[in-house]
Amino acid sequence: MEGCVFCKIVKGELPCFKIYEDEQVLGFLDINPVSYGHSLVIPKTHRENIWEITEGELEGVIRAAKRVATAIKKAINPSGVAFLQLNGRGVNQVVLHYHIHVIPRRDQDPALPMVEWELRKGDPEALKTLSEEIKKAF
Amino acid sequence: MEGCVFCKIVKGELPCFKIYEDEQVLGFLDINPVSYGHSLVIPKTHRENIWEITEGELEGVIRAAKRVATAIKKAINPSGVAFLQLNGRGVNQVVLHYHIHVIPRRDQDPALPMVEWELRKGDPEALKTLSEEIKKAF
Repeated sequence: MEGCVFCKIVKGELPCFKIYEDEQVLGFLDINPVSYGHSLVIPKTHRENIWEITEGELEGVIRAAKRVATAIKKAINPSGVAFLQLNGRGVNQVVLHYHIHVIPRRDQDPALPMVEWELRKGDPEALKTLSEEIKKAF
Repeated sequence: MEGCVFCKIVKGELPCFKIYEDEQVLGFLDINPVSYGHSLVIPKTHRENIWEITEGELEGVIRAAKRVATAIKKAINPSGVAFLQLNGRGVNQVVLHYHIHVIPRRDQDPALPMVEWELRKGDPEALKTLSEEIKKAF
């Protein structure tokens, strides 16, 4: 798509630190890494988000992301790897081309901001009502 | 697996606010929701993390998670939905049964802790070296 940074990377019009490629998918290092080894896995076809990407494309991307996580584990031996994938301005999606962040953390690295939140018990009655609303929306 | 909370939910030994089910996958509300509509999508088979789950199981789980995100969008109209999936103690994986957090955010909700981090440009030379190390690990 015109003006999309990730489409330009796919077409070779912008450089990237490539780590993975297959027919449908590209994997490369994030140039603003939140941790050592922070990588991105994207479909080569422009899809904005989880609602636009097809099920078949999604399967290809998640298979590739698993392979990337496996290579990262072997290469840098992290004690954990987080997958994060943002859809929409409301959750700060910046590049509007579907991408999975693969974010490793080694024991010596600082804590990751995206894996810590306060646990607060939800209200069971409210959860029950909400689960019924969501079920009806399938 | 003995002692696994999510396996107990799958077997019906513990209750849940179910929103989705197919042969391989279960979707239900998180009882400690970080946002309105925070849901979990899991394989029925016990797999600890991204390295243990098979590619076929992973495809089934991500397809289901896309459907869950679509139903959530229809039901509560969020301005964004984050997918988060943690592997290993180093990134605070608590329940050691693979699960995708589907975390919606509506405009009126507080900012999500897992979608904000400071962008810091990485060192191009270091990134280049690292990308070569990871590439070799495939």
